Amino acid sequence: MVYLTRVEHFNAAHKLFNPNWSREKNEAVFGVCANENWHGHNFDLYVTVKGEPDTDTGFIMDVKKLSRLIKEHVTDKLDHKNLNLDVPFLKGKMCSTENLAVGIWNELIPHLPEQVQLHCIKLYETPRIFVEYFG
Amino acid sequence: MVYLTRVEHFNAAHKLFNPNWSREKNEAVFGVCANENWHGHNFDLYVTVKGEPDTDTGFIMDVKKLSRLIKEHVTDKLDHKNLNLDVPFLKGKMCSTENLAVGIWNELIPHLPEQVQLHCIKLYETPRIFVEYFG
Amino acid sequence: MVYLTRVEHFNAAHKLFNPNWSREKNEAVFGVCANENWHGHNFDLYVTVKGEPDTDTGFIMDVKKLSRLIKEHVTDKLDHKNLNLDVPFLKGKMCSTENLAVGIWNELIPHLPEQVQLHCIKLYETPRIFVEYFG
Amino acid sequence: MVYLTRVEHFNAAHKLFNPNWSREKNEAVFGVCANENWHGHNFDLYVTVKGEPDTDTGFIMDVKKLSRLIKEHVTDKLDHKNLNLDVPFLKGKMCSTENLAVGIWNELIPHLPEQVQLHCIKLYETPRIFVEYFG
Amino acid sequence: MVYLTRVEHFNAAHKLFNPNWSREKNEAVFGVCANENWHGHNFDLYVTVKGEPDTDTGFIMDVKKLSRLIKEHVTDKLDHKNLNLDVPFLKGKMCSTENLAVGIWNELIPHLPEQVQLHCIKLYETPRIFVEYFG
Amino acid sequence: MVYLTRVEHFNAAHKLFNPNWSREKNEAVFGVCANENWHGHNFDLYVTVKGEPDTDTGFIMDVKKLSRLIKEHVTDKLDHKNLNLDVPFLKGKMCSTENLAVGIWNELIPHLPEQVQLHCIKLYETPRIFVEYFG
Repeated sequence: MVYLTRVEHFNAAHKLFNPNWSREKNEAVFGVCANENWHGHNFDLYVTVKGEPDTDTGFIMDVKKLSRLIKEHVTDKLDHKNLNLDVPFLKGKMCSTENLAVGIWNELIPHLPEQVQLHCIKLYETPRIFVEYFG
Repeated sequence: MVYLTRVEHFNAAHKLFNPNWSREKNEAVFGVCANENWHGHNFDLYVTVKGEPDTDTGFIMDVKKLSRLIKEHVTDKLDHKNLNLDVPFLKGKMCSTENLAVGIWNELIPHLPEQVQLHCIKLYETPRIFVEYFG
Repeated sequence: MVYLTRVEHFNAAHKLFNPNWSREKNEAVFGVCANENWHGHNFDLYVTVKGEPDTDTGFIMDVKKLSRLIKEHVTDKLDHKNLNLDVPFLKGKMCSTENLAVGIWNELIPHLPEQVQLHCIKLYETPRIFVEYFG
Repeated sequence: MVYLTRVEHFNAAHKLFNPNWSREKNEAVFGVCANENWHGHNFDLYVTVKGEPDTDTGFIMDVKKLSRLIKEHVTDKLDHKNLNLDVPFLKGKMCSTENLAVGIWNELIPHLPEQVQLHCIKLYETPRIFVEYFG
Repeated sequence: MVYLTRVEHFNAAHKLFNPNWSREKNEAVFGVCANENWHGHNFDLYVTVKGEPDTDTGFIMDVKKLSRLIKEHVTDKLDHKNLNLDVPFLKGKMCSTENLAVGIWNELIPHLPEQVQLHCIKLYETPRIFVEYFG
Repeated sequence: MVYLTRVEHFNAAHKLFNPNWSREKNEAVFGVCANENWHGHNFDLYVTVKGEPDTDTGFIMDVKKLSRLIKEHVTDKLDHKNLNLDVPFLKGKMCSTENLAVGIWNELIPHLPEQVQLHCIKLYETPRIFVEYFG
């Protein structure tokens, strides 16, 4: 079993804001992250799949195909978007990096080829904060 | 003459949108960067000053003081903000990285101590795009 | 279950020196790391906790609170210190990166909130050497 | 149990080319990676071993010795080489990063000292593509 | 005047080999870089242009257009290539990073729009070796 | 004219302490950097030389030779040392990064070959603080 990781990027705006709470409570809990006019990040996305190398190619899967699948099913939906307003799979959820990683897992997993399993979604919000989700 | 650089960070939302143009023209010129719902970035800011090292301290200036000045006069105005809506010194200007770097230069220069000169504002919008302004 | 990592930094001096050994044996085993006048490093500390995202916040825990806990209980005790002389929790132990990572785990774990578990302490001594401890 | 990682580098040429296939099929499957005149990479190699810290040294093993073992048994065989032509342990195998990581594991494992176990070979082909092998 | 830099990547094989010299002299001068079977690198290319920001766009030039020009006129000719065999603009020249940077400057400069000047080609051969050319 | 840069590393201990001042004044001016028991850093050193590429080699100078000269005349004197106690060329000077960069310039310049000029010493004390000296 070998693990293969592809790193992709996207830029997005978001805010941390619970609509069931007053603005005061949102600011008390989320601080500057609750700014009503939004802020944003350069996100780094690490997608790891695992499988057995194929004898003919040496690949567990073609990393160019993995990159295309991530673009089609994940980053095209997130890049240069507002995570709170523009992303159907985040509707009704808090726009935390935790929930975003779980959402990316769910978007990607139906589209991966049979010969690999999705192992991990790792998502950097800043160079000093990241989350990992293993399903 | 020695050059001293301090690197700081801030996260912000923005869009590229010229209010004198139609939405169609904005989208034709700026593409996904014109998304009306905003997008955002982790900006890396490099501030370079130059001067002669002081005999008693070995410093051209105290880098902790430089960091405080950048925070007070620049990054507190930009971090977790919307560059189009929340930043007085960008009002009426296009929110490009070029204009942001020039604006940061103008905000910071009146507050630096006499013993140094501001040499360069270098601003990364993404790890693959940055601008530099030398006054 | 989601994993959340916060990266912090500290700078410190240390030496590798076993007081039960002669200087010759220390130099034979530890080489330049045994320099009696010390050397030092910029350490990068990765603290990973795991838990379930809260419905109201989307967080497994507030990363700003995690950062404050690391600062109060770990990096304030290590930053700009001499690891051999200034750090009570390393007294009587060899100042290796391995032992430092284990010590950091033990310092931090009593102070984490109940909703998360400490998963990993990862500590870079240089960009090319790091250790991980999982308890 | 503590995990210790040493990062090493090597530069090499290779191509992805299955000699049982026509050139057309190779180009269809591998694209530009099948260029008959080769291409190349700066590879970053992360070797992770695990063990118990020794009381006298604080080490699970001496990282300088780990570095020498990697150089002698791995990177001297790969650095400034052609992976398809110059590397005995890759003969008859596709020169994928997956197979290279497995080959490095097999080369290194007989030479590690008893007090540690090899845990992971992590190999970056580019800053955005890496594989991991755990045996 | 503002300076704008775009970072691009390409992977290539090459060797350092002067055809007017014996193999022995090539090996004496170039060491492992003269391996007749080639080696290779991940090159990072920084292209810097300078100009005045446009009032309507805030840009000195559209960085997406700069990226397309670099791709069309430079990296498509170099990526996944053999620098000694596949690159017309390097024919008859030693394949050093110095000559490659000068060649990239000459390839790119006729295609830049009038409103900017090419300022610098910076080329990383490895993370620890780079060259810069200013024309 | 082409500029060639080689990046090297060294680890060292130091403190900021002016022996003409009381401990109180040192702590007031230098804060934690004045800790009497020292602290330390991983320093990254960028040495840039400039010259004309040689027709036979394509080099302005052999970067392996540059690396050896830096090691012999600079980093062997600094690596795993105490900058205040162990480094003859810093005796009697404040151990600031500014003064260290100037000292490195002076140590290296007599040993460079005639065909190049030393252009810049760039020295990172931390990933967020660096100085540059151009002579």
